[in-house]
Amino acid sequence: MTRSPSISGPMGSLPLPTFISKRLFSNSPQVKSLSIDNINQNVVSAQYAVRGELAIRSEQYRAQLGKGEGKDLPFDSVIAANIGNPQQLDQKPITFFRQVTSLMENPELLQHESVLLDTMGYKSDVIDRAKRLLKDVKSVGAYSQSQGAPSIRQSVADFIERRDGYSADPANIYLCAGASSGVNSLMNIICSTPNVGVLVPIPQYPLYTATMSLMNSQVVPYYLDEASRWSTDIPHMRDALKQAQKKGIDVRAVVVINPGNPTGGSLSPEDVRSVLELAAEEKLVVLADEVYQTNVFEGEFLSFKKGLRDLQGSEHNNDGKFDNLELASLHSISKGMVGECGHRGGYYEMVGFDPEVVAQIYKFVSIMLCPPVIGQCLVDCMVNPPREGEPSYPLYRQEYDGIYNDLRHRATALHKAFQEMEGVECQTPQGAMYLFPTIKLPQKAIEAAKEAGKNPDDFYCLRLLDATGICIVPGSGFGQKEGTLHFRTTFLAPGTDWVSRITGFHKKFMDEYR
Amino acid sequence: MTRSPSISGPMGSLPLPTFISKRLFSNSPQVKSLSIDNINQNVVSAQYAVRGELAIRSEQYRAQLGKGEGKDLPFDSVIAANIGNPQQLDQKPITFFRQVTSLMENPELLQHESVLLDTMGYKSDVIDRAKRLLKDVKSVGAYSQSQGAPSIRQSVADFIERRDGYSADPANIYLCAGASSGVNSLMNIICSTPNVGVLVPIPQYPLYTATMSLMNSQVVPYYLDEASRWSTDIPHMRDALKQAQKKGIDVRAVVVINPGNPTGGSLSPEDVRSVLELAAEEKLVVLADEVYQTNVFEGEFLSFKKGLRDLQGSEHNNDGKFDNLELASLHSISKGMVGECGHRGGYYEMVGFDPEVVAQIYKFVSIMLCPPVIGQCLVDCMVNPPREGEPSYPLYRQEYDGIYNDLRHRATALHKAFQEMEGVECQTPQGAMYLFPTIKLPQKAIEAAKEAGKNPDDFYCLRLLDATGICIVPGSGFGQKEGTLHFRTTFLAPGTDWVSRITGFHKKFMDEYR
Repeated sequence: MTRSPSISGPMGSLPLPTFISKRLFSNSPQVKSLSIDNINQNVVSAQYAVRGELAIRSEQYRAQLGKGEGKDLPFDSVIAANIGNPQQLDQKPITFFRQVTSLMENPELLQHESVLLDTMGYKSDVIDRAKRLLKDVKSVGAYSQSQGAPSIRQSVADFIERRDGYSADPANIYLCAGASSGVNSLMNIICSTPNVGVLVPIPQYPLYTATMSLMNSQVVPYYLDEASRWSTDIPHMRDALKQAQKKGIDVRAVVVINPGNPTGGSLSPEDVRSVLELAAEEKLVVLADEVYQTNVFEGEFLSFKKGLRDLQGSEHNNDGKFDNLELASLHSISKGMVGECGHRGGYYEMVGFDPEVVAQIYKFVSIMLCPPVIGQCLVDCMVNPPREGEPSYPLYRQEYDGIYNDLRHRATALHKAFQEMEGVECQTPQGAMYLFPTIKLPQKAIEAAKEAGKNPDDFYCLRLLDATGICIVPGSGFGQKEGTLHFRTTFLAPGTDWVSRITGFHKKFMDEYR
Repeated sequence: MTRSPSISGPMGSLPLPTFISKRLFSNSPQVKSLSIDNINQNVVSAQYAVRGELAIRSEQYRAQLGKGEGKDLPFDSVIAANIGNPQQLDQKPITFFRQVTSLMENPELLQHESVLLDTMGYKSDVIDRAKRLLKDVKSVGAYSQSQGAPSIRQSVADFIERRDGYSADPANIYLCAGASSGVNSLMNIICSTPNVGVLVPIPQYPLYTATMSLMNSQVVPYYLDEASRWSTDIPHMRDALKQAQKKGIDVRAVVVINPGNPTGGSLSPEDVRSVLELAAEEKLVVLADEVYQTNVFEGEFLSFKKGLRDLQGSEHNNDGKFDNLELASLHSISKGMVGECGHRGGYYEMVGFDPEVVAQIYKFVSIMLCPPVIGQCLVDCMVNPPREGEPSYPLYRQEYDGIYNDLRHRATALHKAFQEMEGVECQTPQGAMYLFPTIKLPQKAIEAAKEAGKNPDDFYCLRLLDATGICIVPGSGFGQKEGTLHFRTTFLAPGTDWVSRITGFHKKFMDEYR
């Protein structure tokens, strides 16, 4: 087996930067202990988009422009619409959150309360919050409980109760270093053999397939229904499950991402209930990735937890089939109006899990000691923000609504642009931070891509980058139905002027290849 | 296979708190998807000390005392000498570090520079550092590069160069969420099959055996030589290696913890060189856990990197055997005088790795997106602290030396106490945060332990806790030579009064069972 140095990802297999690809000892085989051929092949076969050709090239453009060397480029700025990284794209952190964390980092500032209040713009509820959290964690430099600080887990439980109208138990809540870390823990528990399968939506956020590849277990793909706004299609899911079972796969769990990444779809209450019904009947653990739960632009978010509790108390549960359903629902400080990706914070709530299994999850997470404590404090702020009547509330409300409305405004502008583009169809923006339009390219463009050795969607996205400086991700990085082409773009970049760069490029591209 | 709810760890298999151990559906088998019998058995078999009987009981005592309900207890405070968690034990964070991170969390404070300088005790170099880091990371709420922010990796490279006198390349440096996370990444790459083995010192920090258990690979134990201050014994290591190879194990790497955890030993330059020689001859990757590199009380710390570069340029390398040696050395913000465990920061430098292998490590770490950015900033502060002549230097020096001297003072006091205890022998404190004395118990005590269903070292530690409120960890949690008994204690707890509690208990214990 030989491989050229590359990273596989949404952009396919792409050359690495030279510092990585240069082989130091290419003519001296076996001088090293580790080689691409003898290391963990589950890592080698995992696919994850990081620094594909597109991202690398866009960073090169950015560097060129930064040095004033980009005068020949047909654009004057690079727009990173490829990653959901709000604060890299100028989204301002929420003031209350960061005032609290600044005090957590330097509690000595609390010696100067009046200066903080009179001069620095801090409010008394900021100081109160910091004091409460300091009392629990003692110092953000100390390890917390591996499961997370007790008072913060209590805050999460209170939040869930307010959100759903059903109680939550802090003992069932595990704080984690971002939802990715939570998914990793859960998959490490679930995936015991190469024969274990998990239903994963397609298109999906590639964390899921990458983690399952690391665990050497089976991805059982189910397609979301683009025509009905990326909803779940239960007969199709059941069919995918049965097909996998026929092959002898032990399907144990189903992943649902709601609101959806990359689709931007938002499941209806009926969809949520139908998935729970399927899971109860087929004894599947539900992994509900709900990190975009506040990024909802149409209808209301229904959590899987509330959906489950509703069903448990309804006539649908006359046979008790929902009583034992295992649900893990994940949330994160990285998305929503919080956008604190770099702090690596999140949580998952486990409902209905066997206590012996939970004990093993506890042991697993304890090996990495604890999630970042300052990230835990941000989880507390997210689930327990200033309330009406509290001093920080007016600014919090203003900032939160400002971010929400900007996102919505940009999503709408982008969607409108897509509607006007030849061969492009895009579902109404419903949630998350993404649009995932489908695109029909002329035969000539598909041939040109083939000639260039690229997938047609890769080819399109590369041409877009070269022409406009806008970096988006081809649909192949997330999975798409055979014969269809898509791309994912965030709507995080400030302003909407960049949208016209896309429409302008698209027109020229279509004219060239029509 | 059935198991009672328990977590295995240094304290053996112990009952869990009731919230975990209560089986909800014990009479309805197979109603759940996941059970202790079908989840990942590599997790089930992993042993890791977290909440063993000792730790749980000590927390119960602490809670009792906190509520004023501990009047019948024979002690008035609980001393957690079981975990290296300095700031939980009142070690103050370094002022410079936390002033910087407070500005990183709330850059709005930089609008009030004169207030910071005149009233809040900030110095101009704090402000300069925060501005430099903000320029690199933009916001601590934004994802950084998966490998870590470029300017921080440059700071680490500069630090290594200053420390060793040999250059380091930022491209070879990976920031991580504490050294544990780095070890996890490296082990995930190395451990490709159940047949792969790694030489691990005994006694060891249980992260290593736990991670290898998760990877389902072979721990190849080698014993440290207690009689020569816990040094490495090369003929014995070679023997352990050969024995494993005879069994068909593909031994690929050797772990060295220097200074040692739990031993508190510190390797001599000769030991470091000998391990490198063995590794070069046997083509083993060296994993050098150097998180205690500044906790050295005797002699000078020699990094494996410097040891390797020295050898590469020496006559020992006439045959070029050191040219291809693969070394990964790990460092952390959790230990040393920094003690920022809760922030989860660290780095590893890889030397001599095949670039194709490094590319896979890059992909692996990118799946979890990036290490916590504020922890990365603390790595920058740790490797690049205030220097002589800079405004923050005097206080930094004073705080750093204060912590160092306190640690040394307490280590000495503890060691002196152990020397006076019957049946206890303890190596001179050399480094890290631990002492690991050996203890000979009377036959009657060993029988009493057996009767109580405990290992003798567990029994001793439980009795110590019940009598004094001091929590330490039995040697069985780290591994010890057959027939010997040890315990590990940190010397982090403030003051030295608690030491006399140990000597007093020990005398009574010995009298009881002599």
